[in-house]
Amino acid sequence: MNTATGSGGEEAVLEELDREECLRLVAPGGVGRVAFNDGEGPAVIPVNYVMDDGAVLFRTAIAGRLNTVLRTALRGAQVRIAFEVDRIDEERHEGWSVMLRGGARQLSDEECATVARVRPWPGGERGAHIRMVPTEISGRRIHH
Amino acid sequence: MNTATGSGGEEAVLEELDREECLRLVAPGGVGRVAFNDGEGPAVIPVNYVMDDGAVLFRTAIAGRLNTVLRTALRGAQVRIAFEVDRIDEERHEGWSVMLRGGARQLSDEECATVARVRPWPGGERGAHIRMVPTEISGRRIHH
Repeated sequence: MNTATGSGGEEAVLEELDREECLRLVAPGGVGRVAFNDGEGPAVIPVNYVMDDGAVLFRTAIAGRLNTVLRTALRGAQVRIAFEVDRIDEERHEGWSVMLRGGARQLSDEECATVARVRPWPGGERGAHIRMVPTEISGRRIHH
Repeated sequence: MNTATGSGGEEAVLEELDREECLRLVAPGGVGRVAFNDGEGPAVIPVNYVMDDGAVLFRTAIAGRLNTVLRTALRGAQVRIAFEVDRIDEERHEGWSVMLRGGARQLSDEECATVARVRPWPGGERGAHIRMVPTEISGRRIHH
């Protein structure tokens, strides 16, 4: 995550990750960052997510302009988004990053009842469930 | 970062941050996530950054398709991007997130010599320096 020579003096290696390794890394869920266009350009917000049958499932908060824009965009339409998950050790200059891209849509109330429950952000109890089926998965790891 | 009721049982509060607080939080630099459109939709990659005279300054790696796309898009043109920085404690369900948006462009070699040096990702020694002047700054904090 740093210069080619890390803090320990060893050379840092940038390794491209294959699809299986990417899926293994994102499988536990947690916090990810969703990128989407809000009409004025790219925007990014962190959300809690789970993996559900190969799809990324997250819930927007009800509050905040960006959440409203994202929710509105996905109501009844499929919109292309990117979802990024990483673990980065800023001290050791090591870590990995995975990006999943694909069409996302808002789940109906009926569908929500059948999927894994996602912890919402505060104020997210009434937020929308969003499901993104990745059609493109890429990732890389940096280590010494 | 979780349900409205945190692990300790206290209610979680979502607080919108003002511009000054956002700038204070991102001032130390470190790792952020840059979102941009690569022609197929939004994309996100983590980068090291510094704040330089109110602007976000980061360096792309030379390797990787996304870095190439980003670098090409910004060569000689100003492109709107989003830059997100956060610190999230997944255990305590607390944290903050700041997003800066604005036009970004690639710096010339002459300009690079005058700005603060940014630690690149591995393979980034020959990567491009990107500078984004934020025209929109927003953030929020979640605490108990």
